[in-house]
Amino acid sequence: MSQLKGACIIGQSGGPTSVINASALGAIEAALDSGAITRVYGAANGIKGVLDDRLYIMEEEDRAELKRLRHTPSSALGSCRYKLKDPGADDTDYKRILEIFKKYDVRYFFYNGGNDSMDTCNKISKFMQRNGYECRVMGIPKTIDNDLFGTDHCPGYGSAAKYIATSCMEIYLDARVYDTGMITILEIMGRHAGWLTAAAALAGDYAPDFIYLPETDFNMDTFLSDVQARYAQKGKVIVAVSEGIHDKDGKLIAEYGGSGTQQKDSFGHAQLGGLAATLASVVKEKTGAKVRGIEFSLLQRCASHIASKTDIEESYASGRAAVEHAVSGVTDKMVGFRCTRDGGYRCETELLPLEDVANTEKKVPREWINDAGNGVLQGYIDYALPLIAGETEQEKENGLPRFAKLRKVLAV
Amino acid sequence: MSQLKGACIIGQSGGPTSVINASALGAIEAALDSGAITRVYGAANGIKGVLDDRLYIMEEEDRAELKRLRHTPSSALGSCRYKLKDPGADDTDYKRILEIFKKYDVRYFFYNGGNDSMDTCNKISKFMQRNGYECRVMGIPKTIDNDLFGTDHCPGYGSAAKYIATSCMEIYLDARVYDTGMITILEIMGRHAGWLTAAAALAGDYAPDFIYLPETDFNMDTFLSDVQARYAQKGKVIVAVSEGIHDKDGKLIAEYGGSGTQQKDSFGHAQLGGLAATLASVVKEKTGAKVRGIEFSLLQRCASHIASKTDIEESYASGRAAVEHAVSGVTDKMVGFRCTRDGGYRCETELLPLEDVANTEKKVPREWINDAGNGVLQGYIDYALPLIAGETEQEKENGLPRFAKLRKVLAV
Repeated sequence: MSQLKGACIIGQSGGPTSVINASALGAIEAALDSGAITRVYGAANGIKGVLDDRLYIMEEEDRAELKRLRHTPSSALGSCRYKLKDPGADDTDYKRILEIFKKYDVRYFFYNGGNDSMDTCNKISKFMQRNGYECRVMGIPKTIDNDLFGTDHCPGYGSAAKYIATSCMEIYLDARVYDTGMITILEIMGRHAGWLTAAAALAGDYAPDFIYLPETDFNMDTFLSDVQARYAQKGKVIVAVSEGIHDKDGKLIAEYGGSGTQQKDSFGHAQLGGLAATLASVVKEKTGAKVRGIEFSLLQRCASHIASKTDIEESYASGRAAVEHAVSGVTDKMVGFRCTRDGGYRCETELLPLEDVANTEKKVPREWINDAGNGVLQGYIDYALPLIAGETEQEKENGLPRFAKLRKVLAV
Repeated sequence: MSQLKGACIIGQSGGPTSVINASALGAIEAALDSGAITRVYGAANGIKGVLDDRLYIMEEEDRAELKRLRHTPSSALGSCRYKLKDPGADDTDYKRILEIFKKYDVRYFFYNGGNDSMDTCNKISKFMQRNGYECRVMGIPKTIDNDLFGTDHCPGYGSAAKYIATSCMEIYLDARVYDTGMITILEIMGRHAGWLTAAAALAGDYAPDFIYLPETDFNMDTFLSDVQARYAQKGKVIVAVSEGIHDKDGKLIAEYGGSGTQQKDSFGHAQLGGLAATLASVVKEKTGAKVRGIEFSLLQRCASHIASKTDIEESYASGRAAVEHAVSGVTDKMVGFRCTRDGGYRCETELLPLEDVANTEKKVPREWINDAGNGVLQGYIDYALPLIAGETEQEKENGLPRFAKLRKVLAV
């Protein structure tokens, strides 16, 4: 295939992670070093930045400062949750994107995100093809949720899993320090897929007593009798629950409300949350025990200080691979991972069709969850342990992380 | 002073920290290596273990495994919140303690804890003296709250402060990722003293917009207008609040309840908490913004993975110093720190009378808080930055902390 010369845009979308900037760095560095790519733009707040003509010139950034993106959490370019309409119904946004692409001679578009972002990539690419505008479009995966279809795992997941497992270990010791009884409820992110909550099982000897994922139906009565029995036996119980657990009718447990109070009013429940408080209230009423609810909240997705080295390296590699493949002629693919674990962990990038990835969720296999639906089995642990391996080498200044500070010079 | 030969007991009390076991290790190692101390016992669950005759034989532990206590959070020997009665009113417990001391020929008692523990030490020592039983009693400080009187700072504080400052930095980036408005309320421990919440200011460029400590009165109207003005101006606001903030009448804000709901019922409020949810509810009603409440909860006191190296080393040194001073003839003292910061940070141990320390709380000086009572000044930052310096060298196994596993052989 002949070399395609032109500018590129790199955008980030969806919820941030500890390592999405490592992916961006891989893509930016590969693009800056590529002979084919004439200019490297970062879209401010993802596709919104393209629509609003807000593009940062990456050549204006100091290369040493850029390198700090490897250890800077959140999305340095800014993110959005903007969903493009179906172009058949309304192609206004697509026409605008084409206009911007033409204005800056953009021939490469790299989008770093989850399911929705792959859908965005796919729609943009199809529109460009229909309009005869040559442009190579590649998806770079990220999501702490680990729910992207087709890839062994997602960049971002290993670091979040490492944070969760480590925190579970630390809380295990903390919650056992007194000689009095105590029940602790840990609420972990994950609406439809339980990958993050499953990571609690990586804590091994220090893992929670019970782990509930949204892959199975949650039964309040069974839960309460399990907890009560364990409490009677051991005096200490730790439970990890995914924010998305639901009953057999699909109703979220977070919406049950605790012992007659209107828990759900306090945050308006636009975002989920409050599940730990709801369960703590119910468990307290049932057992009379001291109960504490803990939400891992945003910390689980932005804790770059405890990012997995493996995750950082793979994230960087996926960003680089997207650019290198595109320059060599590939388009309409997402970079995925193909891994082997027998005889030591090995991970290679592979290319997956965007349309296969878009809008398909990968769940925790039922065979990795125990029959009772309250625990996670060895199959998951063998799968996930390699992903949390290795420690970050984040630069510190005065005992605190030194994050990248970008100049963010806008193109005009 | 003549050498006093006999056994020692080391106990831990109060809430756990990331480094209380480093202090215990310092004391245990010094005791094991001392010619004067004939046997080293660890009290199971602090003074309760003495009363219940549950003492672990430290000579039975593997020395290499013991060393892992340096990086193991919580209280490895177990803790308690048992408060001894005034011996004038009821000396039953003291008689029992004397009985146990005689049974095991205990001539040294080291107690590792906060205000209450120093009070316990003091009462036990006085009782032994009145009863003509020679025993040297030393306090080893610990508290994430940093509220012990007389010492520059407390072991445990630096690590908790490092966790809080780092988490604030990470949340700052996360909360700014979208181009839509967002208000985030961070709830940090501290009922009467605001040291932990003040640590949010260490995040520097990434620090919360407003920081409220219990050292000043909290006014809901002023708070709401401050937040609303900043939200109108910037679109993003982060607020850090101490769990113990209160109004001018001393009423806890945590007990206000959010917009008509009975927040306080869900946990029964035996422990504080729910403040973030309460404030989030009020702020949401006032501003209409997306608001998220985050409680740092137990994680801030047990996050050994991000302990301060300075804190670990000082904690260890304070444990060693207690034993070495006692063997050399000192009694009735707590080990404190005397520090200089001009021309580089230097810290030395010093000895403080137990009775001066017991039951006196040290608060954040008013001159380190701004006039409006919603921010922390440079004086505090200069004080605290050295305490969070340096990174832990915690051993990892499969990407996760390798904590000490003690045999805990009981004496009979």
